[in-house]
Amino acid sequence: MIKRLFDVDPWKVKSTKLDKADKRLQESLTSIGNGYMGMRGNFEEGYSGDFHLGTYLAGVWFPDKTRVGWWKNGYPEYFGKVINATNFIPVELMVNDRKVDLALDEVKEYEIELDMKKGILYRSYTWVEGETEIRFTFKRFVSIALKELAVIEVTAEVIKGDAVIVFIPKMDGNVTNEDSNYEENFWLEMKRVSGEKSSLTTKTIENPFGVEQFTVTTMMQNVTENIENKEFSEGFMQVEEKITYALKAGEKAKVTKFVSVLTSRDVQPENQEAMAAAILDQAIELGAEQVEAQHVALWEERWRKADVVIEGDAESQQGIRFNIFQLFSTYYGEDNRLNIGPKGFTGEKYGGATYWDTEAFILPMYLSIADESVSEQLLTYRHNQLPGAFHNAKQQGLQGALYPMVTFNGIESHNEWEITFEEIHRNGTIAYAIYNYTNYTGDEAFLSTKGIEMLVAISRFWADRVHYSKRNGQYMIHGVTGPNEYENNINNNWYTNTMAAWTLRYTLESLEKISSIVANELYVTDEEKNKWRDIVEKMYYPHDEELNVFVQHDTFLDKEILTTDDLDPAERPINQNWSWDKILRSCFIKQADVLQGIYYLNDEFTLEEKEANFNFYEPMTVHESSLSASIHAILAAELGKKEKAVELYARTARLDLDNYNNDTEDGLHITSMSGGWLAIVQGFAGMRTVNNRLSFNPFCPENWDGYTFMIKYRERLLHVCVTQVSVSVRLEEGEPIELTLYDKEMVLTNEVHSSLSFS
Amino acid sequence: MIKRLFDVDPWKVKSTKLDKADKRLQESLTSIGNGYMGMRGNFEEGYSGDFHLGTYLAGVWFPDKTRVGWWKNGYPEYFGKVINATNFIPVELMVNDRKVDLALDEVKEYEIELDMKKGILYRSYTWVEGETEIRFTFKRFVSIALKELAVIEVTAEVIKGDAVIVFIPKMDGNVTNEDSNYEENFWLEMKRVSGEKSSLTTKTIENPFGVEQFTVTTMMQNVTENIENKEFSEGFMQVEEKITYALKAGEKAKVTKFVSVLTSRDVQPENQEAMAAAILDQAIELGAEQVEAQHVALWEERWRKADVVIEGDAESQQGIRFNIFQLFSTYYGEDNRLNIGPKGFTGEKYGGATYWDTEAFILPMYLSIADESVSEQLLTYRHNQLPGAFHNAKQQGLQGALYPMVTFNGIESHNEWEITFEEIHRNGTIAYAIYNYTNYTGDEAFLSTKGIEMLVAISRFWADRVHYSKRNGQYMIHGVTGPNEYENNINNNWYTNTMAAWTLRYTLESLEKISSIVANELYVTDEEKNKWRDIVEKMYYPHDEELNVFVQHDTFLDKEILTTDDLDPAERPINQNWSWDKILRSCFIKQADVLQGIYYLNDEFTLEEKEANFNFYEPMTVHESSLSASIHAILAAELGKKEKAVELYARTARLDLDNYNNDTEDGLHITSMSGGWLAIVQGFAGMRTVNNRLSFNPFCPENWDGYTFMIKYRERLLHVCVTQVSVSVRLEEGEPIELTLYDKEMVLTNEVHSSLSFS
Repeated sequence: MIKRLFDVDPWKVKSTKLDKADKRLQESLTSIGNGYMGMRGNFEEGYSGDFHLGTYLAGVWFPDKTRVGWWKNGYPEYFGKVINATNFIPVELMVNDRKVDLALDEVKEYEIELDMKKGILYRSYTWVEGETEIRFTFKRFVSIALKELAVIEVTAEVIKGDAVIVFIPKMDGNVTNEDSNYEENFWLEMKRVSGEKSSLTTKTIENPFGVEQFTVTTMMQNVTENIENKEFSEGFMQVEEKITYALKAGEKAKVTKFVSVLTSRDVQPENQEAMAAAILDQAIELGAEQVEAQHVALWEERWRKADVVIEGDAESQQGIRFNIFQLFSTYYGEDNRLNIGPKGFTGEKYGGATYWDTEAFILPMYLSIADESVSEQLLTYRHNQLPGAFHNAKQQGLQGALYPMVTFNGIESHNEWEITFEEIHRNGTIAYAIYNYTNYTGDEAFLSTKGIEMLVAISRFWADRVHYSKRNGQYMIHGVTGPNEYENNINNNWYTNTMAAWTLRYTLESLEKISSIVANELYVTDEEKNKWRDIVEKMYYPHDEELNVFVQHDTFLDKEILTTDDLDPAERPINQNWSWDKILRSCFIKQADVLQGIYYLNDEFTLEEKEANFNFYEPMTVHESSLSASIHAILAAELGKKEKAVELYARTARLDLDNYNNDTEDGLHITSMSGGWLAIVQGFAGMRTVNNRLSFNPFCPENWDGYTFMIKYRERLLHVCVTQVSVSVRLEEGEPIELTLYDKEMVLTNEVHSSLSFS
Repeated sequence: MIKRLFDVDPWKVKSTKLDKADKRLQESLTSIGNGYMGMRGNFEEGYSGDFHLGTYLAGVWFPDKTRVGWWKNGYPEYFGKVINATNFIPVELMVNDRKVDLALDEVKEYEIELDMKKGILYRSYTWVEGETEIRFTFKRFVSIALKELAVIEVTAEVIKGDAVIVFIPKMDGNVTNEDSNYEENFWLEMKRVSGEKSSLTTKTIENPFGVEQFTVTTMMQNVTENIENKEFSEGFMQVEEKITYALKAGEKAKVTKFVSVLTSRDVQPENQEAMAAAILDQAIELGAEQVEAQHVALWEERWRKADVVIEGDAESQQGIRFNIFQLFSTYYGEDNRLNIGPKGFTGEKYGGATYWDTEAFILPMYLSIADESVSEQLLTYRHNQLPGAFHNAKQQGLQGALYPMVTFNGIESHNEWEITFEEIHRNGTIAYAIYNYTNYTGDEAFLSTKGIEMLVAISRFWADRVHYSKRNGQYMIHGVTGPNEYENNINNNWYTNTMAAWTLRYTLESLEKISSIVANELYVTDEEKNKWRDIVEKMYYPHDEELNVFVQHDTFLDKEILTTDDLDPAERPINQNWSWDKILRSCFIKQADVLQGIYYLNDEFTLEEKEANFNFYEPMTVHESSLSASIHAILAAELGKKEKAVELYARTARLDLDNYNNDTEDGLHITSMSGGWLAIVQGFAGMRTVNNRLSFNPFCPENWDGYTFMIKYRERLLHVCVTQVSVSVRLEEGEPIELTLYDKEMVLTNEVHSSLSFS
C-alpha cells in the first residue's frame, strides 16, 4: 500500500518525474513553512490540471457556523477553519504568447527538489515547443530569519530558438477552501495597489461569534536584471505585473519576487502597508543571496541541535529528517499564540489549530530538541486559553476547565457529541504535559504559577465529571471516548479513569509544594481536597484477573476478541471499508489506549504488566491513526520486541513519504512528525527521565549500522551514538551530569563520555 | 407548562381570540387533511405576521443530499424531506384598494372553528376600517369523498359603508421549506394556464439518487353568484384571478374556490390537466353543498365506528376526538404506498414518511377501529419496502433486512450513527406488528405469504447482528440504542435482545405453520434454523436479582439512580436544558424501554415482574417523547395504579391541544395521536386479545362519569360502555363471540350483552 513519489536521499525530497496523476501528493510533500506562513508545493507558473491550492498564515482562521443535521445541546456555535489566504507565489509565464502549463505542455529534464538542509524548494524543466526550448528554473523559500518574507526566483534560459518571454508575478486573493461544503468565500478585498511595490489587503468576512476579523496585507516587489518592459495591472482581489523579455538562444532572464506578508495579529491594519514595504526594502537592500544565506544558516543551526543520523538505512534517514524538517517548518516556538495544527501549512483538512496531539506527541520531542522556552511556550498557550476551557466545561454544565478537542482560541469548535462531549481524556494529557515539562526540565516555575492554576481547574472538572456508583462503592466515569476512537460512549475507559485519578493526585501533591500565597488564590478548600482524595482512593479501574490486563472499558471483554491476523487484508484499513457501527462493535483498536496510559506513567507499572497488556492489545491494534505506531514502537522496544519496534518505526517515520494511510494528498500528518524521533530516542535508545535521572537502554536495529542523535536535557546538550557494537553518550555542552546507561550509573563530563562496546 | 389556545368543546376546536403571538400553534391545531393532501391552518387572505406556510401532498417528497459535519461509513446518501407544495388556499381580499391582513388590521367578533365531526374549518370576523365594516366568513375542507378536491368558500357581507371588494383566488408555487438549512427550492415550474380554469403544474427538481421527480398539477375554478368583474393573471409559479364586487351595506358576495390536485404518483403528467379539469367539472356540477354533504356523511360514518364518548370530562372528550380526527385526516388506509408521518399534513419537521411509531403505536389502534384491510395495507407497505430493508442491512455489512428508522421508500434516510446504525430495535417492532395483526385478526393469510418473507429477512439480520461472547457463553447485541433515545451505543439493551430473540422464536414457529412450498422458497436451511434456535436458547438478558428487574442494559445500574422527583423543575424538559452528554449519563428515561417490551409481550410476564419493573423505571421516566405516556398509562392501569394511569392519559390525549411539549407550533404529534385511545381501551378498559380470546378488565377514572367506545374484532363490531357503576359490552354487528369480562367468561350475541353493575 506504499506510494513513493520521491527518490530516497538523505537530505532531499526530489524527483525527476512530473506525476500529474499525483499532483496533490507532490504538493503536500513539497510544502514549506516558517512557523509564520507556509504553502503547499503549488507551481508558480500555474497548473490547469487537478491540484490543491494552499497558502496558509499561522493563526489566521475563520469561525464557520456549526451545521449539523441533528443539533445536540451543548454544541459549539462554530467550527474554526484554517483558511486559504492570498496566493502570493504565482509567477505565470508566457512564451511567444502561449501560457506555460505543465498539465498540457511538453517538457523534458524535469526536476523537483526540496532541500531540507536549507529549507529551499527548487524546480526546473526544459520547455519544448516546436523548435523552441527554454530551461525554466524556480527557487522558493519562506525565510526563517525574517518571518514575513518569502522569496521566489524564476529564471528562463533560452536553449533553442528565439522567444518573447513574459513573467507575470501575481498575488491573488480569489481563493477558497477545498473543504468548504457551502462554497463560502472567507475574504473581503480592502485595498489594492499596483506599482513598483504592488499590494493586496484582504480581510476575513464578518462573523456573528465575536471572533476577530483578520486583515492581511501581501506586498510584492519584483527585482529583475535587465528590465525590458514592465506593466502593472490589477483586478478584483488581484494585482500583477508583466515583465517581458525578448531573448535569443543562449540568453537568460531572471525575476526575483520578494513578498512580505503582514497580518493584524501583529500589526495594526493601518500600519501593515508601511511595514510590508519596510520589510521588502530591507530584504532587497540585503539582496536575495544574502537573504538566502541568513535563512540557510538558521536552518543549519536547527539541524546542528536536532539532526538524527542513521547509518545504513537511507530510507529511515530520509524519513526522520523529513519529519523534523516539517515539524520545524510548522512550529519553532516563537509565538505562544500558535500551536501545531494537524496539517500545519500543508493542507486545510480537520480545521482547528490545536489538538491534544501537541501535548501527547509533540511536546516530548520539543523537550529534547529545542530550548526549554519552546515547550514552555506551548504550555503557556494552554494557560492563555484557560478561559475557553472554563467555557467548554460550562457548556456541559460542569465545573472547572475542559480543554478543547479542536480549537484556535480555547473554545471548543468540534461538533460530534461522541468527541466534543466525550473524548475528555484530552484534559488528562494537558495535565500530564505540565508534569512532563516539570519532570524533564526540573524547572518548577511553570508548575508553581500557571501550571497549578491549570491543574486545579482540570481537577475540578474531573471531580464533577465522575460519579459515585453506590452499587459498586467506587467512582466511575461513564460516557467517554478514549484515545481509541473506534469505540464511542463507553464506560470506565481504563485510560481515562487512570489519567483522571492521576491528575487529582498530581494536583494534590503539587498543591503541597507551591507557595501558600499561590495556593490561597486558587481557593481550594479542604473539603474539595478531601473529595479529590476520596476519588483517587476509590476510583474504579477495570481489570481482568484471568488475562492479567487492564481492561479498555467495562464491557470490552464481552466482545468477540480477535487479532488483526483475522482481518481480510482487502478490508483494511477498516475505517475505509467497514460500516461505522461494525467498527464500533469490533475489538479492533485505532491507536494506543490502555497502552497510552502505560506509556505516560511508564514507571508506575511492572515489566510483567507492560508485557501482558502489550501482548493483549497490540495484536488487535490496526494503527489507523498516524499517532499509533510511535507509542507502540517505544513500548515494543522496552519489552525487547526489537523487530516489532523497527516495523512500527518504519511506519511512522515514512508515513507521508510513502503515503501509508493513502491520504497524504490532503496534507502532511504534522502532529505525527515526532513519531519517528520518539521511536528512535525513547524506543531504540530507551531514553527515560524518571525521578530526575536520565537513563538510556539502547539497541541498534538489525538493518542499521548505527544512529546518532542530540538531546537537550537540563541545560546540557548530549550526543548519543549507537552502533551494532557500541554505545557512546557525549556531553557536548553544559555541566557534568549523572546518568544511567543500561544498568550502569555514570557521571558525564566534558572529558569523560560514557561509552560501551559490545564484543 | 400548559398553553391552551382553544376552548374546550366536545366536537370543536374553536376560539374567539386571534392569537397573533401564537399564530403557528393556531395553524398546527387547525390543520385539516384527507389522507391524500392537507394543510396547516393558514389564512386564505394571507398574513403578514409570523406564520408557517404548509401544504403537503402525501407521498410527494424530495431526497435531500445528506450533509453532515463528519461522515460515517454506511450513512445514507440522502434524507427524505416532506416538501411544501403549491399553496392553493389563498383568496386574498382587497377592500377599497386595501389588502385585508389580520396581522395589521382591526377586526372584531373573530371566530375560528374546526368542526371535527364534519371535517370543516370555519373562520369569520368583522373587518373594520373607519366607517366601513365587513363581515368575512371562510369555510374550507379537503374532501374525503373525492380525495383530489379541496373547497374554499369565502363570503363578504358589508355591514356598514360601501365597499369595493376584490377577491383574489390564487395558487402559488413559490414555496420553500422552513426546515431547509440550505435555502433550497424544491420545485420547477412546468406550465401555467390562466382562465376560467387556471392551473399550475410544478415538478420537483432533479436529484442524483434515482428518486422519481414528482409532477403536481393544481387547478382552480372559482364559482361566484353575480359576477361583477373577473380578471385572470399569472406570474412565475403563480396564477390568480381577480373578482371585483362593488357592494353597499347589507349586500353580500361569495366566492367558492374549487381546487383539484393531481400528482404523478397516480396520473401521468400528460393527463393531469385533463383529470384535474374533470374533477372540477364533476364537483361543480354536483355543487358545493352536495360535495360538502358527501364529505360530511363519510366523516359521520368514520365516527360511527370509532367515536369514543367520555361523560363528565369535557377536556378528555375533546382530546380523544382531536386525536382520532387528526389521525384519520392523515391516514385512513386507502393507499398502501403511504404511511403515517410524524407530522402528517401539519408540518415538515423530522422529514420522512414512516417511523417505527406506525407499527408500535398506530397499528394497534387501527386494528380495533378500522377494517382489517387498513392494517393489512400498513403491513403491505412494509412488505413492498423489503428491497429497501435489504439494502439497509447491506449498508452495514449485514445479512437480511433492516427496516429503516426514517424513510419514504424503504431505504434508510436518517443520518445519525447512533440512530441510523444502532436503533435497530425498530426491526423487532416490524416483526411484532405481523404477530399483532395475526393474533388480533386471526387471519393467517398475511403471515403465511408476505409476513413470513419479512420475518425470515428480519431474523437473518438478527442472526448476523448478534455476536457470541465466548467469555459469557451467551449471545449478545452490542452497540445499540433502545427506545430510550436518552442513551446511545449501549450493550445488551434488554428490550432489543428480548425482541430479537422473540423474532427468531416467532419466525421458527411460523415456519412450522406455513406451507412447505412457501417455506422452500425462502431457502431457510436446517443449519440456519439451528443457529436461530441456539441464539434463542443462549440469548443474554440483563437482569438484577436484588431489584428483581430486567436491566435496561449492561451497565445501567452503575449509574447514579435517581427519580424525576430529584430533578429541579426549572431543568425540565431536560432535553431543552441539559447538555446532551449529561442526558446520556443520567438514569432518566425518555420513553418506555424495558416497559415497551413488557407492553408488547404482556402475557409472558407475571404481574410481580410487571410491577417491579414499572415501579423501578417509571419514576425515572421523563416522558419527553410523545410516545411515552400511553404505554405507561396502559401498564399503570393493569397494575391498578389508576391515578397514575389517568394522569398519563391526560398527558397523551391533550398533548397538542395543551401544547405540553412546547413544540406543537412545528406541527402536531401525529404518531402519538393513538396514545389517548390506547390508554382508554387497553388501559382503562383493559382490553387484551391473548390466545384468540378477547378480554376486558375495565375501570372508570374517578373524575369521569363514564366512557364508551367501539371496537372491531374479528368481523364483529362491539360497543363498550363503562361507568362508575356498570360495564356493558354489546355486540353491534357480527356473529356471537366468547369473551372474558374481568374474570367472567361469557358469550355475546345480538340479544345477550354482557353487562355488569357494581354496588
